[in-house]
Amino acid sequence: MKGMGPIPAVFSPDGSHQLSIGGRLAEELVAEAGGTPLFVYDNNIVGLQIARFRAAMPDGVDLHYAVKANPYPPLLAFIARYVDGFDVASAGELDRLDEAGVGDVPLSFAGPGKSDAELFRAIELGATINLESESEAGRALRLAGELGIRPKLAVRVNPPFAIRGAGMKMGGAASQFGLDHDRAADLVRELVAAGADWRGLHIYAGSQVLDLDALVEAQRATVALAAEIAEAAGAEPPKINLGGGFGIPYFAGDTELDVEALGRALNEILCNAPQVLALTCFSIELGRWMVGEAGVYLTRVIERKESRGKTFLVTDGGLHHMLAASGNFGQLLRRNYPVAVAGRFGAAAEEDVTVTGCLCTPLDLIADDVALPRADAGDLIAVFCAGAYGLSASPQAFLSQTAAREVLV
Amino acid sequence: MKGMGPIPAVFSPDGSHQLSIGGRLAEELVAEAGGTPLFVYDNNIVGLQIARFRAAMPDGVDLHYAVKANPYPPLLAFIARYVDGFDVASAGELDRLDEAGVGDVPLSFAGPGKSDAELFRAIELGATINLESESEAGRALRLAGELGIRPKLAVRVNPPFAIRGAGMKMGGAASQFGLDHDRAADLVRELVAAGADWRGLHIYAGSQVLDLDALVEAQRATVALAAEIAEAAGAEPPKINLGGGFGIPYFAGDTELDVEALGRALNEILCNAPQVLALTCFSIELGRWMVGEAGVYLTRVIERKESRGKTFLVTDGGLHHMLAASGNFGQLLRRNYPVAVAGRFGAAAEEDVTVTGCLCTPLDLIADDVALPRADAGDLIAVFCAGAYGLSASPQAFLSQTAAREVLV
Repeated sequence: MKGMGPIPAVFSPDGSHQLSIGGRLAEELVAEAGGTPLFVYDNNIVGLQIARFRAAMPDGVDLHYAVKANPYPPLLAFIARYVDGFDVASAGELDRLDEAGVGDVPLSFAGPGKSDAELFRAIELGATINLESESEAGRALRLAGELGIRPKLAVRVNPPFAIRGAGMKMGGAASQFGLDHDRAADLVRELVAAGADWRGLHIYAGSQVLDLDALVEAQRATVALAAEIAEAAGAEPPKINLGGGFGIPYFAGDTELDVEALGRALNEILCNAPQVLALTCFSIELGRWMVGEAGVYLTRVIERKESRGKTFLVTDGGLHHMLAASGNFGQLLRRNYPVAVAGRFGAAAEEDVTVTGCLCTPLDLIADDVALPRADAGDLIAVFCAGAYGLSASPQAFLSQTAAREVLV
Repeated sequence: MKGMGPIPAVFSPDGSHQLSIGGRLAEELVAEAGGTPLFVYDNNIVGLQIARFRAAMPDGVDLHYAVKANPYPPLLAFIARYVDGFDVASAGELDRLDEAGVGDVPLSFAGPGKSDAELFRAIELGATINLESESEAGRALRLAGELGIRPKLAVRVNPPFAIRGAGMKMGGAASQFGLDHDRAADLVRELVAAGADWRGLHIYAGSQVLDLDALVEAQRATVALAAEIAEAAGAEPPKINLGGGFGIPYFAGDTELDVEALGRALNEILCNAPQVLALTCFSIELGRWMVGEAGVYLTRVIERKESRGKTFLVTDGGLHHMLAASGNFGQLLRRNYPVAVAGRFGAAAEEDVTVTGCLCTPLDLIADDVALPRADAGDLIAVFCAGAYGLSASPQAFLSQTAAREVLV
């Protein structure tokens, strides 16, 4: 038997042994949606995370949602009520926001390969562009000139450090993201001289961090670096995007990030920030932490089969919807996401089984050799932590399989 | 500098230093298609591979195309003229064949999680169902009874061996695919007793194999296993699907599979096959080998940038179209696919660069630290070996980026 990640505590089993999401039985949700595979996102869990962030963080720290984590329009419409900004990474994400009908939330736009058309549209919308190079700055200024708009431009900085233990490191090395930190001040001066509305700096050092100390250390270094660049540029940044990086537990042994302690540490950092940042507004950009645990992927067992002494549950879902759970998205070592049998939720484990998807590839693993209550063909399997980088980050057309449904409850 | 895989020999540079695909300049193809990113598939290369297969293999060995490798309908329509069957893995692939208008090619259907609806449709179409378990056999017989059709049923066998050095091993272990070999004969007898049209066996031991000896050894073992099962079942199999497994060179040091030698070896194996297989027709199921080298992914450089002494070419494409090239699809170690600057094709390398996609993730690498002629913003980068498991096997909705175009030339 192999371990699996912890089921988020908000899904606590009761005596019924039936999984509920947002107060609704999993089977009911599937029936209403018209079938499996189904992603269910619980807006209450998203709301709880946002409330927890607000309570934990120093007053005045803005919360941005990184649309890339989950661009499902009804979810965006919910989130729009509670955040201070949306961070987008493509024109397509602007389309998702349009679909969601949330035009009035401040926008910022980052990405190493923005096209002219994307820059044009973002400037026209009044979004803050996080510039990733001097040449992109030149393009943005030229396009803003054509539009007759004073563009909102921030500088994305490639910091000389990464976050220890980050699931994904960004910084501390040569990179396609942002400007090397020692070139940022020059660009800031040029933007100011060109008459742009310089909005500040964006410094992103890593993601999926569960280690409090590592994140505090990165935030401290980020604030110091921002101050250094501002001093060198001779300009006070209106805003510093501190990045995000808040992780969630996915795997056996993972424990949740202590966000309250992080907030206290950040408060101390900001209270002691250098004078050049005295009027600066800080923001944190979160995606995964806000929505990851709010999502459950429901898939139905089609076949229960035995092979060479092992039991397999073959489901109607798979890596075409949950690539990360299969271990094929940035992981060096495959580990199991938390899963459960929805109709025996919280019941004692009875057997070791391997849960697979329906694709014709051995990569299509949902849970490898995990202890679960008995499940048969027709039973629902729930995969937790499916709210971020799930459906939109998976090869949905692979093997031309059934599309997944999505619902917000 | 790191290495990259060999550019397929069929793309040989001439003095013009312009990449042509199917006799058309890459830039012309992009202009006609309306922009980048663009997948170009060259039907001549597919045709050459098919001709090579026919010339190399023993007479009477059928060639099947595995639709999962690339389900682009115009490509299916082309392939339909030259193959003996299509192997599908989902109802969605039947839809792609419908779109391609190729209803008259024999079909077989494999997959560990076929739904009742899929079985129903496949039986109605007269497809051969490769049964993956006893319980699936029961479902297929029941549905065929409801339809009043005598179903064509084959048995997929999980062999007790895998192919040495296969990019993906299937066999030799507990698996969701097929029946363990020691249970296959019993199921064959039951199918015959139930009055089904038993079509034979399907034995698939691995894919992406470049090692001739390993493949010969697997084919020899497959034929022996098929004979053993047929003897035990007391039934002569009309057809044996030997699987596929023919690999193509993707990475530095890879060399092409010697298909001619493989054909000679297979001829010897079949000439000496046990008596129980005397009337059996054999087939080989290929996807990657038939279409992989026929595809080129064209993406345009948006930014050329320097960071800490390294040069990056940031393109408008990325892992949302070519997940496998980014190293995130089943590879333990990331290696570079063959790439080129389309407008300086065959020119001498001038610098070491890293080619990335446009996504906001460090996973989005197209080629890491490769030697190329100089390229600037606006230049086209060609990624070769993009014809199989490319677009359909990638997370196309990730970051809501621009959709890729496809064209067959």
